[in-house]
Amino acid sequence: MNSEYYFEKEKKYHLGVYRRSPVVFVSGEGPYLFDLEGEKYLDFLAGIAVNVLGYSFPPLVKAIQEEAAKLLHTSNLFYTLPQIELAERLIKISGLSKAFFVNSGAEANEVAMKVARFYGRRKHKKRFKFISFERSFHGRTLLTLAATGQKKFHQDLEPLPLGIAYAKLNDLQSVLEILDDEVCAIIVEPVQGEGGVYPSSKEFLQGLRELCDREDILLIFDEVQCGMGRTGSFFAFQHFGVKPDLVTLAKGLGGGLPIGCCLLDEKVLPFLHPGDQGSTFGGNPVCARSACVVCDEVSKESFLKKVGEKGDYLKKELEGLQKKYPGLIKEVRGVGLMWGIEIPGRAKEAAQKLFESKVLVNACNDDVVRLLPPLIIEEEHIDLVVNALDKILATW
Amino acid sequence: MNSEYYFEKEKKYHLGVYRRSPVVFVSGEGPYLFDLEGEKYLDFLAGIAVNVLGYSFPPLVKAIQEEAAKLLHTSNLFYTLPQIELAERLIKISGLSKAFFVNSGAEANEVAMKVARFYGRRKHKKRFKFISFERSFHGRTLLTLAATGQKKFHQDLEPLPLGIAYAKLNDLQSVLEILDDEVCAIIVEPVQGEGGVYPSSKEFLQGLRELCDREDILLIFDEVQCGMGRTGSFFAFQHFGVKPDLVTLAKGLGGGLPIGCCLLDEKVLPFLHPGDQGSTFGGNPVCARSACVVCDEVSKESFLKKVGEKGDYLKKELEGLQKKYPGLIKEVRGVGLMWGIEIPGRAKEAAQKLFESKVLVNACNDDVVRLLPPLIIEEEHIDLVVNALDKILATW
Ligand SMILES: Cc1ncc(COP(=O)(O)O)c(C=O)c1O
Ligand SMILES: Cc1ncc(COP(=O)(O)O)c(C=O)c1O
Repeated sequence: MNSEYYFEKEKKYHLGVYRRSPVVFVSGEGPYLFDLEGEKYLDFLAGIAVNVLGYSFPPLVKAIQEEAAKLLHTSNLFYTLPQIELAERLIKISGLSKAFFVNSGAEANEVAMKVARFYGRRKHKKRFKFISFERSFHGRTLLTLAATGQKKFHQDLEPLPLGIAYAKLNDLQSVLEILDDEVCAIIVEPVQGEGGVYPSSKEFLQGLRELCDREDILLIFDEVQCGMGRTGSFFAFQHFGVKPDLVTLAKGLGGGLPIGCCLLDEKVLPFLHPGDQGSTFGGNPVCARSACVVCDEVSKESFLKKVGEKGDYLKKELEGLQKKYPGLIKEVRGVGLMWGIEIPGRAKEAAQKLFESKVLVNACNDDVVRLLPPLIIEEEHIDLVVNALDKILATW
Repeated sequence: MNSEYYFEKEKKYHLGVYRRSPVVFVSGEGPYLFDLEGEKYLDFLAGIAVNVLGYSFPPLVKAIQEEAAKLLHTSNLFYTLPQIELAERLIKISGLSKAFFVNSGAEANEVAMKVARFYGRRKHKKRFKFISFERSFHGRTLLTLAATGQKKFHQDLEPLPLGIAYAKLNDLQSVLEILDDEVCAIIVEPVQGEGGVYPSSKEFLQGLRELCDREDILLIFDEVQCGMGRTGSFFAFQHFGVKPDLVTLAKGLGGGLPIGCCLLDEKVLPFLHPGDQGSTFGGNPVCARSACVVCDEVSKESFLKKVGEKGDYLKKELEGLQKKYPGLIKEVRGVGLMWGIEIPGRAKEAAQKLFESKVLVNACNDDVVRLLPPLIIEEEHIDLVVNALDKILATW
């Protein structure tokens, strides 16, 4: 059976909501993916920031295989070791107080927002609103879609959950303008991902922290895309030096398996009770074991230092490209190994051309090509991608 | 390290929202679980209806191990084989039209409810409301909590998403009373699980079907708990002979790994467009491969026939117990291998006593002990559990 056969089958049986590139991937090795016909692709998207350790990382595969043979799942009515060991790792790395596990980024944000509601209702009675940001993305559940500051995601789903307003990233004044005494939390991606790769400024996040401290509002960092080493720090909040009250993780956490997490500061604990949250699969042994391996690898100082260095190199190379094609590239933005290349109106075309030259990136929208490589890439891979893009732009 | 050590560690690092039984499970075999000290437990809960094939089912472990070595994840921007093969299986078994994958039961219901909103808004403009049922449970996201007809889950989270009203299960009149021309869908568990194991009647589900057909309202069956062979049919809707427009699955689908699914009837397809739904992990290769093995096993006629027979045997035994202890057991209710034993006021005590005799069940609430054994149990295991319960009740 060739790829065409499977494209047809997918069309026949799967809901047609994804715009997929025409390739069937069957295996991977390091930063490379292999399709059904044996073609090799250099992957600078990592399953949208998921495969942080690349593909077929031996300790990860081994841990999953071993745990799968022991215990797949037994529910949160009982204790299981990998979940406890993962919670310990994340709390030690983050300096926050407690961990709670779910299965996706959307679910992690639902937990954080529910915690904020409980805090707002139980401590301050009338507080229930959220401030989010324009261009943000927080997930596909109705609440996280409502928190997503992009109109296109709200259409035909109204009424959305009440009480969410959008400020402008890096504009503290715009936050103050919509702040009222019913706000329980501010939710922000330290580096906006889906919206086109927009990093927050350190000063802005510090300003949010001070505001939240002053008003006893919870500060939620959605690190689903920018956490797990991507900025060169394990958590993006460490990169920016601003500690949130709640942090959400998913994507890279399991290294490929579905797991999400919300980490909580001590101050919310008195307002949470048994039964307030729950998840059937959340923190199951196999996904949690996998996430333990990822945490051990990514939290190594040497690993994070290398991510920072490779990030600096990528930045330098992208800025070089921009200088070379100032009429095509409007801006390059990013932190660590998370970059957006603004090519107004032609981002999709550029991503398509890169795909044809067997390099995987994606276009967040018509204007921005996004790079989210596995964190284990080397400079040589960066050179390959930059050269491929250079060749494409040279013909435009 | 012994169990106590891990209880302490969990308390230190994990959010204290679960009421866990004091046992650390590390492995399983068939219907048995083993704790850290090597003690053996007969499991009549199956990870809350998840481990349908029991523990360490060799073809399942092998499939997960093999796929883990090939490809963990590559996102839905590309095609992967297990996802396509799983969609094909589910569509062929269900006779519905398309499949869409997510990571949990709550996410599956979010998809179904969003699909219903799109249908209501795009086809009928003003339709956005849902009818759900008292005692129902649909998940922990804000929308699925709102759909959950139990007040205790709503407290301190207000305002909930608008437009959801609750009728009484098996009471068509109560549905008609809250029906108006803004309702887009009715969501129902064919057998209510968390609420205390309440089966719908066939006539009631037929009545809903006729009503929905007449008014062009979508009928959503939440089969997260009662699907995947539990009733003795692959889908609960097959057991009841009533076909819904949308079916949600999770729990048993992956045999232990996190995966959820929404299956859709053809009639909704013209109202769904690319970009309307999405999930980072949904349908990833490892979880989808695992689910393919579960589907192949559970869809076998011989397998389902045996579930039906074991269900009949369990029913007979439970009814025998009720006759023996009419003052303690008020009612036994169930279908297939999903049973509730109503022991007013003493369900938790009964579950606790069973736990002490190394049998795992759970109490949905103060009144109902719930049995959700792995579908691979044998009559001898039913005898063990019924005898254990008999011994307990004899002392009361
Ligand atoms: C910042 C952010 N938050 C949340 C999500 C939702 O994650 P998931 O698709 O796992 O639900 C995403 C996914 O792209 C994301 O980028
Ligand atoms: C009928 C039903 N629907 C939905 C859910 C939610 O599933 P999950 O915990 O996987 O989100 C459950 C969980 O108990 C359920 O029983």
